Amino acid sequence: MESLAGEGVLEDEKQQVNEELLLKQITDLVINQRLLSGKANAEDRVVKFVHPEELKGLVELSLGGSSLNHVQILELCKQAVEYSVKTNHPKFLNQLYHACDPVGLAGAWLSDALNTNLYTFEVAPFFMMVEYAILAHLRGFIGWEDGDGIFAPGGSISNMYGIVLARYKKFPEVKSKGMSGIGELVAFTSQEGHYSIAKAAHWMGLGTDNLIIVASDSSGKMIPAELENKIVKALEQKKLPFFVNATSGTTVLGAYDPLEPLAFVCKKYDVWLHVDAAWGGGALVSHKYRFLMDGMELVDSVTWNLHKMLGAPLQCSAFLTKHKDILHRCNSASATYLFQTDKFYDTRYDTGDKSVQCGRKVDAFKLWLMWKARGDRGLEEMVDNAFECAEYFSRQIAQRSEFRLVLSEPNCTNVCFWYIPHQLSNCQESPEWWEQISKVAPAIKKRMVEKGSLMIGYQPLPHKNLVNFFRLVIPCQPRPTHEDMDFVIDEIERLGCDL
Amino acid sequence: MESLAGEGVLEDEKQQVNEELLLKQITDLVINQRLLSGKANAEDRVVKFVHPEELKGLVELSLGGSSLNHVQILELCKQAVEYSVKTNHPKFLNQLYHACDPVGLAGAWLSDALNTNLYTFEVAPFFMMVEYAILAHLRGFIGWEDGDGIFAPGGSISNMYGIVLARYKKFPEVKSKGMSGIGELVAFTSQEGHYSIAKAAHWMGLGTDNLIIVASDSSGKMIPAELENKIVKALEQKKLPFFVNATSGTTVLGAYDPLEPLAFVCKKYDVWLHVDAAWGGGALVSHKYRFLMDGMELVDSVTWNLHKMLGAPLQCSAFLTKHKDILHRCNSASATYLFQTDKFYDTRYDTGDKSVQCGRKVDAFKLWLMWKARGDRGLEEMVDNAFECAEYFSRQIAQRSEFRLVLSEPNCTNVCFWYIPHQLSNCQESPEWWEQISKVAPAIKKRMVEKGSLMIGYQPLPHKNLVNFFRLVIPCQPRPTHEDMDFVIDEIERLGCDL
Repeated sequence: MESLAGEGVLEDEKQQVNEELLLKQITDLVINQRLLSGKANAEDRVVKFVHPEELKGLVELSLGGSSLNHVQILELCKQAVEYSVKTNHPKFLNQLYHACDPVGLAGAWLSDALNTNLYTFEVAPFFMMVEYAILAHLRGFIGWEDGDGIFAPGGSISNMYGIVLARYKKFPEVKSKGMSGIGELVAFTSQEGHYSIAKAAHWMGLGTDNLIIVASDSSGKMIPAELENKIVKALEQKKLPFFVNATSGTTVLGAYDPLEPLAFVCKKYDVWLHVDAAWGGGALVSHKYRFLMDGMELVDSVTWNLHKMLGAPLQCSAFLTKHKDILHRCNSASATYLFQTDKFYDTRYDTGDKSVQCGRKVDAFKLWLMWKARGDRGLEEMVDNAFECAEYFSRQIAQRSEFRLVLSEPNCTNVCFWYIPHQLSNCQESPEWWEQISKVAPAIKKRMVEKGSLMIGYQPLPHKNLVNFFRLVIPCQPRPTHEDMDFVIDEIERLGCDL
Repeated sequence: MESLAGEGVLEDEKQQVNEELLLKQITDLVINQRLLSGKANAEDRVVKFVHPEELKGLVELSLGGSSLNHVQILELCKQAVEYSVKTNHPKFLNQLYHACDPVGLAGAWLSDALNTNLYTFEVAPFFMMVEYAILAHLRGFIGWEDGDGIFAPGGSISNMYGIVLARYKKFPEVKSKGMSGIGELVAFTSQEGHYSIAKAAHWMGLGTDNLIIVASDSSGKMIPAELENKIVKALEQKKLPFFVNATSGTTVLGAYDPLEPLAFVCKKYDVWLHVDAAWGGGALVSHKYRFLMDGMELVDSVTWNLHKMLGAPLQCSAFLTKHKDILHRCNSASATYLFQTDKFYDTRYDTGDKSVQCGRKVDAFKLWLMWKARGDRGLEEMVDNAFECAEYFSRQIAQRSEFRLVLSEPNCTNVCFWYIPHQLSNCQESPEWWEQISKVAPAIKKRMVEKGSLMIGYQPLPHKNLVNFFRLVIPCQPRPTHEDMDFVIDEIERLGCDL
């Protein structure tokens, strides 16, 4: 009987998924494979790269009629880990996101398990109150005692909230009448602004031609006088300026637009000023670096992606506005099956109608939990360390002839630079030479990914006439060190020495 | 020394969060608190209701300078569970979502831990291939051999994709020129259509006045002849019809619009037909019920929320279209920092530029994993069971004088009905009588939530002149039984017997 029982267990594993066991195994997999921020070993690879067509041969991707058993499901999870990029690796310095805070992850797991949808107090009592609390705390860093906000599924959609509110404030009839009768609305963003503003201009019915591009200075900051010129010109052409997108921490150069003078211009012409602080917003928690966003309290709305610099789990994008009631007035549709007025509790907490979504994931809780665990001071210390590492990295490569900084000092925690191979140093810097340089970053990138030792992004910046250069993005999670910075420099030299 | 080491551990717990331990404790909490689908005990409460202001006194919501220790963080997680609605409870029959599939949850936990952002093959190799595979499988159920798709953060945004693609297909210049020069575009939806279409009409710059409402029949289905009349009338007024939103499984009555005749009308007038199958799309996996969506293969695009009927973890909304290249052409902005053309691998798998988002959460994997574990046949069996329970429930209440069905037969797995208290039965059904009835559902709802025994939604349907009625929504997760259905009937009688 004993052995039969044993076989029974084995049979079970082969027959069907034991769901509680699977969750425990996932937990063990995450821990044992060192997937948590700060846990990767030096000898781990950032990525085990396999080409798309190869991956199709390695993993049974297709779906069909019958079910898989427990062992097979666990095997697929292991394959997911094996062939995924390790964003928690200290050498994943590729994008504006990275590892997530493990306490935030615990929060995400718990709210995922509760499978809560955030639109009325009735269905999400705890999480609704948490969203209120964390949004109020974030507004405090901006310097607003009042106002409103909402979590959106990413910065692009947060930015859309800004455009839609700006349009509604100036032309409330747009909600019912649409764009066709109002006239030629125009919005403004800098050359360095995120491409989501262009996508939004299309979606919102504005059209990308009506998104007017404002020049930036050599460090990537929008030039307030240029903005004013463009607004004046638009007014002369009988166009209707309604929205300016400034950026705190541009995607490539990490530039912080000068908010005070931009706010002055926007106020003068009665135009809504939105700040896309998706990346650079983290500076707000630092006493040392918040000067980068001086004037923040003067703007109308802000996008702040907490999943970027502060390391909340993806997606965690706060949209914030200083205007208290506009989110609801602008977006409400008062669906009677959700937002009944004859409920037995205080329905002011049924905030779902502020959203353009119906169902909405709980993004607030994971952020709130990690903030509780770190405190303002813990997050500040992380941000200060990341900025300090960027400064250290810049100083180090400034001293080496094989490297050249795109900007002499980093704006934010992204550092942009070229690697100049030996055979190209001491040559005349002709267009042909730059053409050669443009091929260096892609070649080194290929090698680093195939080796799995490092991931750093590269890109050109055509409007600044800059060919492909590396953009190192220094995260808060996992906590970077000077050693990590030195490794990056040495590894690029190793990978590029024979180019 | 032994005791000192022991104290050390205790001190640690009081000092800082042990992150690996916390994840294990979250796993235990989820399992031990029976939060997984199918695990709730009969004696568990669906909700322990506390009013908003009371909750503020029970939980320390505010955030501040210093950090909390391990024990305090775990305590907050326990409070989150205590004061949250148990969506996994078999008596949470309140909304179009419910518990999630535990295998899907395992997938969500793993992709959360990997913190992957889905926009290029480079950063998401495994998950990008998984998204391709599951989207292709979903298209197969619609009957499309080809086409395209993307996961969006919820049905509202999926529906927006449909509107934006429809507009771009007919007026490609809208991407650059915007809405102002094109003329008066008009879109159509039924009276029963989801309110996200109205919200989208505002956001897209169309305006809610240009969303033309089409009448539905007594069971809630859009009337094709009415649609044609409205299109003809709009054309006579020199308006430009470009988009029709049909619904498979309306929010309240669960009606399935007749897709074949609607597709015929749309083809005749060259208008894009989108189907909001967010709720009812689950019928596609059932040989028995897919007739409800006959003609599905004729439409242009579909929203299918797998987190609704099929029980994938929130959010899991597929947008699908039969037009192969349009998603990319419509939405691309070709950001050079992400979508470089000089990469060393096949960049056709860098699909992020199809999206209106920049970063995007991995919603595909959790669905793919649960589909692998259930197979087509397992999901089909779940859907068939839910439909059968809806039919059983309807038959049972049809036999009781205290209940009255809104529709004689349910369209989908939602069942709408009134409870008629004794003292109101056998009275003349005057406007005053209906006024009395309108107060019954809110009163019973208050009692069921305070008792925590059951959660069912209620709403009026003003355009059909129907006062507050209950809408029971029968889920696939956890698997409902006839006993569950009987409990609902008996419990409403118990709660309402003295009204």
